[in-house]
Amino acid sequence: MTSDYFEFLSIIGVAFFAISGTLLGHDKNIGGFGVVVVASVTALGGGSLRDVLLNQPVFWIDNPNYLYATYSAIFITVLFIRHLPNVSSYYMLLLDAIGMAIFNIVGIEKSLLQGTDMIVAITMGMTTGIFGGLLRDVICAEVPLVMRQELYSTACLLGGLTYAVLFHLDIAYLWCIIGSVLVTVLLRLGAIHWGWQPSIFKKGRMQ
Amino acid sequence: MTSDYFEFLSIIGVAFFAISGTLLGHDKNIGGFGVVVVASVTALGGGSLRDVLLNQPVFWIDNPNYLYATYSAIFITVLFIRHLPNVSSYYMLLLDAIGMAIFNIVGIEKSLLQGTDMIVAITMGMTTGIFGGLLRDVICAEVPLVMRQELYSTACLLGGLTYAVLFHLDIAYLWCIIGSVLVTVLLRLGAIHWGWQPSIFKKGRMQ
Amino acid sequence: MTSDYFEFLSIIGVAFFAISGTLLGHDKNIGGFGVVVVASVTALGGGSLRDVLLNQPVFWIDNPNYLYATYSAIFITVLFIRHLPNVSSYYMLLLDAIGMAIFNIVGIEKSLLQGTDMIVAITMGMTTGIFGGLLRDVICAEVPLVMRQELYSTACLLGGLTYAVLFHLDIAYLWCIIGSVLVTVLLRLGAIHWGWQPSIFKKGRMQ
Repeated sequence: MTSDYFEFLSIIGVAFFAISGTLLGHDKNIGGFGVVVVASVTALGGGSLRDVLLNQPVFWIDNPNYLYATYSAIFITVLFIRHLPNVSSYYMLLLDAIGMAIFNIVGIEKSLLQGTDMIVAITMGMTTGIFGGLLRDVICAEVPLVMRQELYSTACLLGGLTYAVLFHLDIAYLWCIIGSVLVTVLLRLGAIHWGWQPSIFKKGRMQ
Repeated sequence: MTSDYFEFLSIIGVAFFAISGTLLGHDKNIGGFGVVVVASVTALGGGSLRDVLLNQPVFWIDNPNYLYATYSAIFITVLFIRHLPNVSSYYMLLLDAIGMAIFNIVGIEKSLLQGTDMIVAITMGMTTGIFGGLLRDVICAEVPLVMRQELYSTACLLGGLTYAVLFHLDIAYLWCIIGSVLVTVLLRLGAIHWGWQPSIFKKGRMQ
Repeated sequence: MTSDYFEFLSIIGVAFFAISGTLLGHDKNIGGFGVVVVASVTALGGGSLRDVLLNQPVFWIDNPNYLYATYSAIFITVLFIRHLPNVSSYYMLLLDAIGMAIFNIVGIEKSLLQGTDMIVAITMGMTTGIFGGLLRDVICAEVPLVMRQELYSTACLLGGLTYAVLFHLDIAYLWCIIGSVLVTVLLRLGAIHWGWQPSIFKKGRMQ
């Protein structure tokens, strides 16, 4: 039951990250099959790191469906993007936000299932959610989203905390997921639209 | 028998990647022992990732011969490069192509030996072939080869597919290897010489 | 006994790297919680890679104290940095040097405990010492310290060799550690102050 949720969520997250990688690859005009490499790394990087750190079988080696989902998402995106004259980078950011929100949850759950402390699980959720997109940006020689001014890792962290709190309140599993995804995605969208630029530096008593 | 092939091929691949890393380090004027770090990461990065993902003992920890091969290749390159006034980056690209072709095959084989699907094995081959060079370029703050305009990951993929096809046709093992390496290397050299710039975008029906 | 040393040293190393990551994040003006991500990756990256390569349980998953040390060090740094108008990047380099020196030793010891050859252990020590700072620089789109002109990986290597030599001379464990850390840190400080710029290229018989 729970593991069905997991697989379904992971497939969605993998596909969304794959599309976000394809869009960035398109923007950066990467040649030939390089787009597939970038998009695959984006889709599979965070979860691979999670499984390696937890010493679990790596998800896409264990279950090739994730590879089919990744490659299908890339293929469909490439087909459609030809017919769309202008794809704004906004879609890339939106897909990245949803993928991050989903992988955050999967990372937390998979970590808790291994019997880790909650602080380890929250850290693992952020690792899983952020790392794929980080690899995408580093490979494409972009400034990583995590380094830019708007809320990014903060959104990921608050989404993870939301999940932890709802889980401890014994809310139904589906609502924990929906609540956490909503918090992460809405914070990201708000930050992109209104330019929220929090800083933990220089906003203290000095001013 | 097969594992002898593996070790021999891996040693060659490791040495070639080590030389390519040393040449790039030389071009970028990296100080002191930093060249050794970059060259070692290039030589050992792809295979380490492969072994970690497959949950196998990491090849250079299990068998220090790979380290001796890496350090010897670096040392000899450093000795010789002093006496060569101009080493063109062409040699770096050539060695990178051969290293990629070889690691591609080793990655596919090692993955198949663990009983994975062919799609996982092909993905693992590309991971093994591309990742070392990618790390080299990222550390040296170069635009990764995989992002540039000429054929790169496409050559790696087609080399992998050639290996898979020859293997299924029951061709002798040695010829599978030779065929796959030739396809990858010749495609890369052709792309470098004639500037083949394939793109999966914007070449569709739109034009 | 030995493992107490390990844990104590690792906690110190983790905290120092966390502070160095926070300082660089501050310099680069990273938004919101992104500083915590960068600092955590710096603190935990090298040791995580070590444990994954050695196929050991990852230290911060096994023992959350490392996470508490990381997050506390970041929190305290953020609190204090508000009250300091100018924090020079010199502190970042100093902390990085000490963290590198410590993780170098821990990496060598942990590798030897798994029964590896000394050449593997020295390589693992450098991996552990250098990788966290390398990730920090790559994520922050800085030119990695390992690529710059002053002694860096050379200092790490010589510190590792010092440790190996003292260890073989049957010196008391504490002095092996102190000797190795002193060699690494003093070489780094000397290189930063006096601009030592060794090169293994172009210093040969040609001139």
